[in-house]
Amino acid sequence: MKLKVDYNNMMQSSIGERGIGEEAFEKNAALIEKARKSVLDSRGKGWQQWCDSPYISESDLGKIIAYGDRVRKAAESYVVLGIGGSALGAIAVASSLLHLHHNELPREKRNAPKLYVEDNVDPERMNALLDVVDVKTTYFNVITKSGETSETLSQFLIVYDLLKKALGKEEAKKHIAVTTTIGKGTLYALAVKEGFEVFGVEAGVGGRFSVFSSVGLAPFAALGLDVKGFLKGAREASKAAEEKSLNKNPSLITAFLQYEAMKNGCNINVMMPYCDGLKFTADFFCQLWAESLGKATDLNGKTVYAGQTPTKALGVTDQHSQVQLYTEGPFDKVVTFIAVDKFRGDRTITDDREIDACDFLKGHTLGELINAERVATTYALTKANRANFTITLPEVNAETIGELLMYFMYQTAFAGAMLNIDTFNQPGVEEGKKATFAMLGRKGYESKLEEVENAPHDDKYVAG
Amino acid sequence: MKLKVDYNNMMQSSIGERGIGEEAFEKNAALIEKARKSVLDSRGKGWQQWCDSPYISESDLGKIIAYGDRVRKAAESYVVLGIGGSALGAIAVASSLLHLHHNELPREKRNAPKLYVEDNVDPERMNALLDVVDVKTTYFNVITKSGETSETLSQFLIVYDLLKKALGKEEAKKHIAVTTTIGKGTLYALAVKEGFEVFGVEAGVGGRFSVFSSVGLAPFAALGLDVKGFLKGAREASKAAEEKSLNKNPSLITAFLQYEAMKNGCNINVMMPYCDGLKFTADFFCQLWAESLGKATDLNGKTVYAGQTPTKALGVTDQHSQVQLYTEGPFDKVVTFIAVDKFRGDRTITDDREIDACDFLKGHTLGELINAERVATTYALTKANRANFTITLPEVNAETIGELLMYFMYQTAFAGAMLNIDTFNQPGVEEGKKATFAMLGRKGYESKLEEVENAPHDDKYVAG
Repeated sequence: MKLKVDYNNMMQSSIGERGIGEEAFEKNAALIEKARKSVLDSRGKGWQQWCDSPYISESDLGKIIAYGDRVRKAAESYVVLGIGGSALGAIAVASSLLHLHHNELPREKRNAPKLYVEDNVDPERMNALLDVVDVKTTYFNVITKSGETSETLSQFLIVYDLLKKALGKEEAKKHIAVTTTIGKGTLYALAVKEGFEVFGVEAGVGGRFSVFSSVGLAPFAALGLDVKGFLKGAREASKAAEEKSLNKNPSLITAFLQYEAMKNGCNINVMMPYCDGLKFTADFFCQLWAESLGKATDLNGKTVYAGQTPTKALGVTDQHSQVQLYTEGPFDKVVTFIAVDKFRGDRTITDDREIDACDFLKGHTLGELINAERVATTYALTKANRANFTITLPEVNAETIGELLMYFMYQTAFAGAMLNIDTFNQPGVEEGKKATFAMLGRKGYESKLEEVENAPHDDKYVAG
Repeated sequence: MKLKVDYNNMMQSSIGERGIGEEAFEKNAALIEKARKSVLDSRGKGWQQWCDSPYISESDLGKIIAYGDRVRKAAESYVVLGIGGSALGAIAVASSLLHLHHNELPREKRNAPKLYVEDNVDPERMNALLDVVDVKTTYFNVITKSGETSETLSQFLIVYDLLKKALGKEEAKKHIAVTTTIGKGTLYALAVKEGFEVFGVEAGVGGRFSVFSSVGLAPFAALGLDVKGFLKGAREASKAAEEKSLNKNPSLITAFLQYEAMKNGCNINVMMPYCDGLKFTADFFCQLWAESLGKATDLNGKTVYAGQTPTKALGVTDQHSQVQLYTEGPFDKVVTFIAVDKFRGDRTITDDREIDACDFLKGHTLGELINAERVATTYALTKANRANFTITLPEVNAETIGELLMYFMYQTAFAGAMLNIDTFNQPGVEEGKKATFAMLGRKGYESKLEEVENAPHDDKYVAG
């Protein structure tokens, strides 16, 4: 595995009594081993089919690659319609591996369609998209595992109508692929009726664990990304997740460190990459951690209100925004730094003889500056006894991103097992869905509408 | 004031015993009034010169508008070099008021230069910028109040060198404006020597409170935004902040509600706009709240480790990422929703007769859908006894954005006064700066370097 984790600054040896003691590993050996076994024993079963995703068959992968080649040649723009787990993988991986201004590059430099991931239903955003793409040269991938997601179906209805008007039905349907559960749901039924290309999502792969399934792979293929390297990285991280030795199993040890930190009052988890390209891998992590661990009851039905709130920051940028709080505020967080050893290109700070200032900066590279600032921030937080650890990638490429995202997934699964909660469900969002159906006048939700409309409200609690 | 705050769901009448009781207002009347007076009495003094920014003189504003007109005509791209408070205002306001894909629009539709706010020193990002802009048609605004910010000066050295090589010195200097403290610091000295246009930042306007000063106004003018409307909104919010009656003073009442919530264990503050254009106003708020309130000591020198960790979410997107945690996780957060009554354009979900599904969605607009989901989420959180309140803007425009940002600033100042801390300093970032200087080999930091290099580290705490 290329990814390394340095967790010195979680320990008492670095941050004193706020840290974790050496004895914690032995004291919790049974808990750790139980979590490891419970996750590994369920691989490929129930909601853990995501563990199998990186071991996709040659023929399934071939179908995806062929789709990608076809779309990449034909499309000026590629649009993912999806939300949550159907979007975050594409955003995280594409923004790590594509040029940071991909959509602004001329076609010959881009060598792939422009990418838009539409993960909201803001009408201004839909209009803005349609201002900059021509549907005639745009290919859409409609991704919803259930095939029932209101936001995604709404977008689909708008887009398919425009495509049919612009191209006629026969051509229009070639511009749509759908990624959904085979044989189930509204979108699958429509795909069969209309004749769209379909990519299946396995029953036991939840949205937030789907980046290595067709949900992620089809967009990556369409963008010409190194899908095989990405899967190879995922398999490396999967293999490491089997290790019994904690120091060979980064996802297991960091799950435990977070679990201990939560017990010590750290209810906040800051993910802070020092690399613009990794900014959205933090969002990917935030969904995974929040939806998986934020649970009201444990597996025994006991009320626990578990969960640690993930938040993202970007180094060095947020040193000028959040680090004051991290250094001096409550002892309520663990900061995870993501470091990159070698950037994909560097730039020297000009040693301009005419400028008689800034001598200590001149001649260093920006890569040296960003990494010096990262080490300095780590040092300052540690000196203030703030818990933190650092994940290091040798460089950003398809393989290391595959490792990183799979590391996040196993870390989450192990932490869920330690907390004894159901990592893979999300019962807490049902109430909001029902209330939305009610407000849109869906049949069968009349009494819910009444409930929403009669929620307590007093005008005396309105200001402005 | 056009902005309204509905705080029903902070109260016991909505969320039961986890809420704030009606009696809290009377019980804390003295505290609230003291905070109000201390902030108002300091307006225009010390670090509260930001209170005066919206009352800029006609002649100062004229200079900024003239600069904006000149640059807007000449520039194909406009680049802000700045970090933290020097960047977040520009990002928040420009992304609210420009087209969501501004840089991808053809020039005639954009009617302003492309915008790049470079608030990091990632070398890949600098290279990516230089791949998509031609420095010959690019104008730069180098913003650092102290004139000493390492990141910004590094960027400046690189850019000025490229400009001189491309255009010659005489032309190059016309492409640079600097925004800094007049008469102080490295950047000011360089500006005088090289002959750059200079915009001054008042001594008592800190970075995170500077969006209504030239720090914000010069970029907004260069982009052709409605600077006067923006300042008008700020003045409206300033006026409201004077009100003694809590319900006429949204920033005061919400500062108090957050203060109470913090006492009740809510150490997390989620800012969740339901509008893509407002996404980065949440980042603006996060800096303000984190750096201002995250303080180790209070004004009496007592150790308090104060602060509430701000984090942002985007509706509806993050309903599929964070709301599970908000609904079922610990009772440790206040969620602030930002609602928009009327979007700047809407789009109807197509009533496609050929698609025999999704009937409850068809014919609604996306604006209706996003707002129904917002109300539904508010309802679901409230039903789960989770503290939340809603800020409503009638629509997004320069005036309401001016109101919103000034509301945030007064809310922060009032909350700081209630916590009895210094809202306007940031002592916690000094240690990291020194360590950075040390690592870059700056003279005078030799012993710090030794300290950093000798920080405790054991290879046994490294995994992977």
